[in-house]
Amino acid sequence: MSTNILKQVNFISELEKLKTVTRMNRTLDGRQENSAEHSWNAALMVIALKEHAPKDCDIFRVVTMLLIHDIVEIDTGDTFLYDTVKRDAVVDEEKEAAKRIFSLLPNEQAQEMLDLWLEFEEGETIDASFAKAIDNLHPLINHPITRNDGENIGNVSKSQVIEKKKFIKDISPALWEIAQEAINKAVQKKLLRDC
Amino acid sequence: MSTNILKQVNFISELEKLKTVTRMNRTLDGRQENSAEHSWNAALMVIALKEHAPKDCDIFRVVTMLLIHDIVEIDTGDTFLYDTVKRDAVVDEEKEAAKRIFSLLPNEQAQEMLDLWLEFEEGETIDASFAKAIDNLHPLINHPITRNDGENIGNVSKSQVIEKKKFIKDISPALWEIAQEAINKAVQKKLLRDC
Repeated sequence: MSTNILKQVNFISELEKLKTVTRMNRTLDGRQENSAEHSWNAALMVIALKEHAPKDCDIFRVVTMLLIHDIVEIDTGDTFLYDTVKRDAVVDEEKEAAKRIFSLLPNEQAQEMLDLWLEFEEGETIDASFAKAIDNLHPLINHPITRNDGENIGNVSKSQVIEKKKFIKDISPALWEIAQEAINKAVQKKLLRDC
Repeated sequence: MSTNILKQVNFISELEKLKTVTRMNRTLDGRQENSAEHSWNAALMVIALKEHAPKDCDIFRVVTMLLIHDIVEIDTGDTFLYDTVKRDAVVDEEKEAAKRIFSLLPNEQAQEMLDLWLEFEEGETIDASFAKAIDNLHPLINHPITRNDGENIGNVSKSQVIEKKKFIKDISPALWEIAQEAINKAVQKKLLRDC
């Protein structure tokens, strides 16, 4: 086998680990969602919602970003959005993880993937901002579907959610409409405090 | 909310169900893999292995095919590759499922997704054949990583696997090299009978 193929198989084998990293989202069969199935869900949301992407957005790049965005959690685990102390602390660890995992690939491909992951993390480009909006929209849609009434994990309030998610409005008004509808549903189901 | 957005949100909400459909593959934490995380794995394999795609293959179309290819299992469940009787019986049910699920989307988008799913199912185009090759390669890589030595689910032989998977060779010799290596590993671990 060529060195390139061997490296690509090593990278693919590493992916198995992301299926063991769990998140705050639930699934319909009562598990905690893992970061692999979340990544699938987010990537397919991009395709379903592509007409609401900002002008000049490259949908394939956004899909690729979302397929790889959580790979670093193989090393760091998932960090709860509202745990701001841990989120700040984990930034450097995640960069190290990205370097380690993407460097399993052949050099040129590794650099390309690392650059795309860093672009997503920084969230400054059109593609990265749409990817971030989708990634942040997914849990809002997931919670009212999968959580029991009154189950407010982390004792989160509506205003905390709006503060974290309001950036979506500038990227895509349509996505913000979806987000607001989902937040209101969550308040009705008492998954969020109404304040 | 516009009708289009409402429909897109309904489609996205439906996706949650695929996370509850389990397959013969295992995960590293000892669960049965579900079809959502398999779809993520397969889509990212396309990106990692894109240099081995046939000439004129459209990688984004292949990624999209793999993101949607198992959605029908929301209605039909997964069918074991070596259960040929059930596989033949399920073809029509899967088509009905595809029509139901994609029709949650706005009309034009629903037709586009249904056409892409049918193209994958038929496996005749360059894009569909590479997607099929990746979909068939994934379990081969997964089994030696996640199964215990001697665990031959379905009492399958090496020759049965080669018969089912040898079509990969014509689509991508590099992928067939990976497949053969994985099959040999499975025989060494006694996940397959050596005949």
